[in-house]
Amino acid sequence: MNTSADTLNRIAATIESRKGQDAGKSYVASLFAKGPNAILKKLGEECAETLIAAKDQDREAILHETADLWFHSMVLLAHANIRIDEVIAELARREGVSGHDEKAARKAT
Amino acid sequence: MNTSADTLNRIAATIESRKGQDAGKSYVASLFAKGPNAILKKLGEECAETLIAAKDQDREAILHETADLWFHSMVLLAHANIRIDEVIAELARREGVSGHDEKAARKAT
Amino acid sequence: MNTSADTLNRIAATIESRKGQDAGKSYVASLFAKGPNAILKKLGEECAETLIAAKDQDREAILHETADLWFHSMVLLAHANIRIDEVIAELARREGVSGHDEKAARKAT
Amino acid sequence: MNTSADTLNRIAATIESRKGQDAGKSYVASLFAKGPNAILKKLGEECAETLIAAKDQDREAILHETADLWFHSMVLLAHANIRIDEVIAELARREGVSGHDEKAARKAT
Repeated sequence: MNTSADTLNRIAATIESRKGQDAGKSYVASLFAKGPNAILKKLGEECAETLIAAKDQDREAILHETADLWFHSMVLLAHANIRIDEVIAELARREGVSGHDEKAARKAT
Repeated sequence: MNTSADTLNRIAATIESRKGQDAGKSYVASLFAKGPNAILKKLGEECAETLIAAKDQDREAILHETADLWFHSMVLLAHANIRIDEVIAELARREGVSGHDEKAARKAT
Repeated sequence: MNTSADTLNRIAATIESRKGQDAGKSYVASLFAKGPNAILKKLGEECAETLIAAKDQDREAILHETADLWFHSMVLLAHANIRIDEVIAELARREGVSGHDEKAARKAT
Repeated sequence: MNTSADTLNRIAATIESRKGQDAGKSYVASLFAKGPNAILKKLGEECAETLIAAKDQDREAILHETADLWFHSMVLLAHANIRIDEVIAELARREGVSGHDEKAARKAT
């Protein structure tokens, strides 16, 4: 289970490490070099592609496009100096996943 | 560190548990009851709001809108019967975060 | 034929006339009062709804959502003090609809 | 004034004439050849770019991106066999631009 968190944090750290690197070195470095508008255009594109994949009921495409959407979200978060843990904490807070709800959810699965 | 993955998986389980529940019972149950178009409209809205927040360089708004975007993504994933771990595995695969890259990323943070 | 341009220009003039009016007086006045982010959120929403309508191959919905998309575009243009004729001139310029192309297009229809 | 309507109808006719043409012949022919998802991805992209231009308060960019947005809307309309006049009629109907309102709007400008 903790592999997933490690993975998200590891990807976030990789993204963070691309800041200020030569644009030719990696895709993320090139996005940072182009500036925030380039990141946001990609975010908009991936959102449209996720909608299209969902309407096509194409499981593989939904999976890939959601990963793309999350990935570019994470580049935006890095640009704004927001940690992934802050987003996850906000998700937890918003959903009010209390101990009680968590137990209910676990029973349901 | 493993708290993040636990949290995401817990939220996903909560979302999953809302399927088939009375629409009046929760926001997520009402989205499932309205059907996929309702989920996708919200995804589009949250994407637009994330772009606006980013252009406003409003840290709190970026954090909240990204959480909203991820949350509605997770509702879509549940609708498509895709597990959060599959998205995270795809993110890891795509980024090619090998042990070597991971070490480099960790040094960078 | 010239009815269409008259109609678009008339709608643009109506939108323009809502600027500075009491927000309670009309929908457009309320959008102007809320400010540009409210206009842009609606634009993003209508875009998502157009995509969904297109994927549903629902002719009526495509027609309605495209009208909504254009309408909110026109509110944005009014906010930015851009005339509809400037957009149409840009469309003509971009497509390079020369007299020759026009003749070809007319034969084609 | 009627030049604008002629222009929109002429562009629509040009777009229509690209249907079934060789994809290498024109940009619009290539969009039709790729199918509706390609048109919708472009629509989503142009919407995101319009939002970004608006937030940048970049008049030239708003003008260009709105033209792009309308243009790809018109390609979608052609794909769905919807005439531009139907969209303009819907805009007029929705806004309830009666003779009375028209007079008010004209006075306001």
